[in-house]
Amino acid sequence: MTTLIGVIGSSVVENAVTADTACETGREIVRRGYTLICGGLGGVMEAACRGAFEEAGEGSGRIIGVLPGRDRGDANRYVDIVIPTGMGYARNSIIAASADAVVAIGGGSGTLSEIAYAWQYGKIIVAVSSLPGISATLIGRRLDARRDDTVRGARDAREALALIASQLPPRRSKN
Amino acid sequence: MTTLIGVIGSSVVENAVTADTACETGREIVRRGYTLICGGLGGVMEAACRGAFEEAGEGSGRIIGVLPGRDRGDANRYVDIVIPTGMGYARNSIIAASADAVVAIGGGSGTLSEIAYAWQYGKIIVAVSSLPGISATLIGRRLDARRDDTVRGARDAREALALIASQLPPRRSKN
Amino acid sequence: MTTLIGVIGSSVVENAVTADTACETGREIVRRGYTLICGGLGGVMEAACRGAFEEAGEGSGRIIGVLPGRDRGDANRYVDIVIPTGMGYARNSIIAASADAVVAIGGGSGTLSEIAYAWQYGKIIVAVSSLPGISATLIGRRLDARRDDTVRGARDAREALALIASQLPPRRSKN
Amino acid sequence: MTTLIGVIGSSVVENAVTADTACETGREIVRRGYTLICGGLGGVMEAACRGAFEEAGEGSGRIIGVLPGRDRGDANRYVDIVIPTGMGYARNSIIAASADAVVAIGGGSGTLSEIAYAWQYGKIIVAVSSLPGISATLIGRRLDARRDDTVRGARDAREALALIASQLPPRRSKN
Repeated sequence: MTTLIGVIGSSVVENAVTADTACETGREIVRRGYTLICGGLGGVMEAACRGAFEEAGEGSGRIIGVLPGRDRGDANRYVDIVIPTGMGYARNSIIAASADAVVAIGGGSGTLSEIAYAWQYGKIIVAVSSLPGISATLIGRRLDARRDDTVRGARDAREALALIASQLPPRRSKN
Repeated sequence: MTTLIGVIGSSVVENAVTADTACETGREIVRRGYTLICGGLGGVMEAACRGAFEEAGEGSGRIIGVLPGRDRGDANRYVDIVIPTGMGYARNSIIAASADAVVAIGGGSGTLSEIAYAWQYGKIIVAVSSLPGISATLIGRRLDARRDDTVRGARDAREALALIASQLPPRRSKN
Repeated sequence: MTTLIGVIGSSVVENAVTADTACETGREIVRRGYTLICGGLGGVMEAACRGAFEEAGEGSGRIIGVLPGRDRGDANRYVDIVIPTGMGYARNSIIAASADAVVAIGGGSGTLSEIAYAWQYGKIIVAVSSLPGISATLIGRRLDARRDDTVRGARDAREALALIASQLPPRRSKN
Repeated sequence: MTTLIGVIGSSVVENAVTADTACETGREIVRRGYTLICGGLGGVMEAACRGAFEEAGEGSGRIIGVLPGRDRGDANRYVDIVIPTGMGYARNSIIAASADAVVAIGGGSGTLSEIAYAWQYGKIIVAVSSLPGISATLIGRRLDARRDDTVRGARDAREALALIASQLPPRRSKN
């Protein structure tokens, strides 16, 4: 059973640093032996998939895109496994439920819903500080009483993945 | 076609003022000719349903509970129409999509996901200020660039509904 | 808590008898004190809603349409409570989970998925015999070993509702 | 983008031939360069995953289990990519929407809902004849007027995959 790391962020990239961070996050996920799961569309999602693709290559089985619509053609070109849910934004819940940890990169209300779900589902949440968007504003916040920890912060992709790796082994065998 | 007002908040009531506010919000929704839609469970949801029930009475068809589970017995006793989705927290998306406006009363990560969805779906969002919990911290915030407005604030139930009523007629006839 | 009766069938009416049966089913549901839940679109759904509307009138809170899309405007004009799920055909599961019993009127693959869900969820299933479409072909069938009964058959709307009423009281009070 | 083949059937295996057929179907899917997607639980799903696992090995990224619940531990031990949706049986819609073709092996009402969805979504449907359960009874049936073809039949796993391969190349490159 592979360990899934979610990357969440806007389908419109706010600026070049955000895109670079997303790309590097995708790279780091694959380098560390994890599998990337995201919303499969453009912007931060595409940049993360591109980074993962450059590391993992064609047909890796390590880049998953969970689409809101039913059309596989909506996926960005770097996604290897397309899950076209047809469930609209309710698919945000699926990404949070599937990921063992999520990296939040910039983002707006969609990203906010995914952070909220990840919190409810008990997942590690790391937001990249110093980027515009909603996720950095939540760093250090304890969203409610069901957990004792907070949304964590990291300066860049490398630090985000190091933080995750310190709590989550790359692969979990079952039993 | 009836106009639906969502009430979102925690299944555990933070304090007596929160419960009173939720109850009064339910009352105001019915008084103004709207229909209440919520998550159908306890806490803020139950208090809102109780207020609506006291105003609308048994069998009104005006108190809807959209449950995460499949067991109708999970609904609080004031819900008239139980929708047991069996879809877990993905039902949060349904409440936001169905409501014409939402009133956020305290709350934590679940409430946050519903506010995020309501924003994505273009719904009027009013949070009650002066209550503990996550929703009041978002008053005045513009969550992302897809909308020009902000999460609105209201001091109490009456003001929240007055704000909604100024933008939303109680019933919409369909041509 | 009101008792919900689902009406399932095609969004394109196969013939006039099918439409009349759907309309009469909607009427009977309201006459017996039940609430109608359906997919909220055209065809069999609209005919059933029309029948219920003629019996219940405007603003009854007794005609629920659970839409696949997010646009309330997709609902037929007789729906009172619109639930625009935005979840596509996954909404079929919600209708089956919410209804205490379903009446299947003609139909194709969509109706088939709803009958399958209603079976899984342990709901009473009555198909109207003598109408074209897939549901009548399942009368007398035990879909799998999880239940001991079968899909029931009824000659018309009146018989379908009489069959349901013999097993399901119009309203259930909750303790 | 990898081509996904769905295997649908009961979580309780009806008999040894059914299990063998499911296992061989999983093997064939991997041999032909496809990726397996299924419900991730026991019975037919586990047998199919086992066959795929024996062919693809550990960490292949080619065995996907889309669970109804939120607990990754519900997945059978051969699943590589676990998608714990938390959406209950509504996950049946996701499997049908994601797969390019489905192989139905025995089964009951759950399988029936997936065949119905696969039909609605325009997917190739092949049922294995000569096995007990609901899927073989649909061979040759045109479920409704939206398609001109029928549910196809195959005598065994090899024939089922040959039929699919004649219509679906193992991998689709995206332009």
